Amino acid sequence: MKYSKQLKKLGTETAFAVSAKARAWAEEGNKVYPFHLGDFNLPTPDNIVKATLKSIRDGKTGYCPSEGIFPLREALANDVGTKRGVNYEPDNISVQPGGKPTIGKFIASIMNPGDEVLYPNPGYPIYESQIEYQGGLAIPYQYVPRAKGFDIDIDHLKASISDKTVAIIYNNYQNPISAESSIEEMEAIAELAIANDLWVLSDDAYYEIIYDGQARSIVSIPGMKERTVILYTFSKRFAMTGWRVGGAIGPKKIIEHISKLNVNAESCTTHFIQDAMVEALNGDQTGPQNLLKILKERRNATVKGLNAINGLDVALPRSTFYIFPNVNHIMKSKGITNVEELQLGALKNANVSFCTRDHFGRPNNEESDYYIRFAYSGINENDINEGMAKLKNYFES
Amino acid sequence: MKYSKQLKKLGTETAFAVSAKARAWAEEGNKVYPFHLGDFNLPTPDNIVKATLKSIRDGKTGYCPSEGIFPLREALANDVGTKRGVNYEPDNISVQPGGKPTIGKFIASIMNPGDEVLYPNPGYPIYESQIEYQGGLAIPYQYVPRAKGFDIDIDHLKASISDKTVAIIYNNYQNPISAESSIEEMEAIAELAIANDLWVLSDDAYYEIIYDGQARSIVSIPGMKERTVILYTFSKRFAMTGWRVGGAIGPKKIIEHISKLNVNAESCTTHFIQDAMVEALNGDQTGPQNLLKILKERRNATVKGLNAINGLDVALPRSTFYIFPNVNHIMKSKGITNVEELQLGALKNANVSFCTRDHFGRPNNEESDYYIRFAYSGINENDINEGMAKLKNYFES
Repeated sequence: MKYSKQLKKLGTETAFAVSAKARAWAEEGNKVYPFHLGDFNLPTPDNIVKATLKSIRDGKTGYCPSEGIFPLREALANDVGTKRGVNYEPDNISVQPGGKPTIGKFIASIMNPGDEVLYPNPGYPIYESQIEYQGGLAIPYQYVPRAKGFDIDIDHLKASISDKTVAIIYNNYQNPISAESSIEEMEAIAELAIANDLWVLSDDAYYEIIYDGQARSIVSIPGMKERTVILYTFSKRFAMTGWRVGGAIGPKKIIEHISKLNVNAESCTTHFIQDAMVEALNGDQTGPQNLLKILKERRNATVKGLNAINGLDVALPRSTFYIFPNVNHIMKSKGITNVEELQLGALKNANVSFCTRDHFGRPNNEESDYYIRFAYSGINENDINEGMAKLKNYFES
Repeated sequence: MKYSKQLKKLGTETAFAVSAKARAWAEEGNKVYPFHLGDFNLPTPDNIVKATLKSIRDGKTGYCPSEGIFPLREALANDVGTKRGVNYEPDNISVQPGGKPTIGKFIASIMNPGDEVLYPNPGYPIYESQIEYQGGLAIPYQYVPRAKGFDIDIDHLKASISDKTVAIIYNNYQNPISAESSIEEMEAIAELAIANDLWVLSDDAYYEIIYDGQARSIVSIPGMKERTVILYTFSKRFAMTGWRVGGAIGPKKIIEHISKLNVNAESCTTHFIQDAMVEALNGDQTGPQNLLKILKERRNATVKGLNAINGLDVALPRSTFYIFPNVNHIMKSKGITNVEELQLGALKNANVSFCTRDHFGRPNNEESDYYIRFAYSGINENDINEGMAKLKNYFES
């Protein structure tokens, strides 16, 4: 009895180990300030909960189509299309049990062994894992720090495209660094995708977590809708990460392939949850509006707290619920050369828990800067302020 | 922009096409008698629904561990172990979003390209599809009709084992033919698995749909628990096919691999549904008991109705909710040589909808008998009787 050799290429989300350490420290009687989790300590809006119960009572407890129920595909086509200035039809939608399933199914639909896929690094670690597990080469592209955030290193990205490249994974409103493309940057990526006839996976997990102004999508650039699959998820927009519902949105043919993968992998997404998502999209929007308001207050508190620490200097991101400070000065002043040591030190000395750059893809060869990630979606404003004060003491000591 | 070549090896569930035809016929104003679907027209037990709502209100709406929440893994280890006379611990359990996900993840964990996997044919079509999609060779084993049901052709199965065989997929209480192994047959399969050092996937989807006496599991045979992964699902036992929750149960190491695939594929299974499944397993069992009572009445009505038709002769299966009659005589008397023609004829002439053998794996070379499948889980007893009377008219005309 043997195991598949390919399992050795399968990565994981090492951030779960941070949760485990934080939990262990809390169980020893410490009050932990949880900045490590991209999850909520806020309830899912009540109209969604009520719609769920109604749907169960209405008997939506049996199998439903693998591609999703028609009313949800219709509602998603309308919502996602309108918010991006393009037209989508129900046939462009394949409902998924979460946002993440679109990553693996997109890669399975377009990549052959030996093909190369460009992905953001630092970035969501499942990109790298799924590309390599499925026999491809994961080619990282990088970000350059600027005064107001991070830019994609377009020259490096361009130089990384080869005749084996088949796709670019693009996560505007980025986890973990909250980077947002300028119009010029988005157009540069679109131009490269079109010139090299590449697929694009647009990971739109944080597309609705925008605190000022409007989001902008690469599919609105001419020539892009035809080559782009959007990863859509309800998780962040409606504070429902544990419900597991999202969608793959793109050209009809690839969406058919993705739905066929659903037939084989999981039959369908929970029937009554799909029903409730029609209410989430078309019903009362007070819930997500309040959510954004609370997150904005938390963002301001987190950024203020971090900038009050000597040696830290972060910009105010317009989107996501992450802050990604450079900790070179802190590391140097403390004489630490391993960012995990800083992370453990902050947990033990300040009760503050966070992830580091190392949890978001393999560090690139030439990296010399140290970064850590703060998520503020799962911690109240008061606790943010308390935690930041303790962190200041530790970082400056 | 190209697609993955491997997609050509991906199969599907063609039975969905039968549903579509039945729906179209119903939309033309016909009352359809739906025997085609292995799904329920019965509600999920109310204590499960209440536990779900309570869990949402308690805030179980965030991420949870990829392998499943501990209380559910504990409850499943206890329930599944007790019902099979073996000991399982929580570490033997990986919660899944349905029963089906265990098929693909089991194969992904133990098969390398070019390996052979034995699977039942006729059988659930996803076995064949997943083996071939993942680069293996799907080697069918077959059933021999007997007076009281079907036996596995053990000699043929034995002869099909080669030095490339890595696993046997075993679906006791079988879909579509409701076959049940004798003790001798189960021991023969165990002996072959042990002698050839094979993995076994025990698809236990219908393990709790037993109308008389107890179910028996291959894991209770010495040497088998160590090489067997059980596909567990809540779908049939609790009339909750559309909820999407189940589990992979087996040796700790392969379960770790399977959970790591979950990290990559879907993060986790819906949090509050897992919570409610603890109630399903440990709470009031009136719901599943009533379900079995109703299904038993429907089974009796279906078998009685079929045996009242000249040319049909079916045994009374002890398990599943399927009846798999041989229709050679009907086909011959009607001068039909294509079983799909009989299926469409029954829909148009008797308003009776059913699947055929062709929906359950590619027919084997030497097959000369014709079979159709009746599912009685989604149709009331009165409608069973009405439908059977109409079918008798059509089949005998």
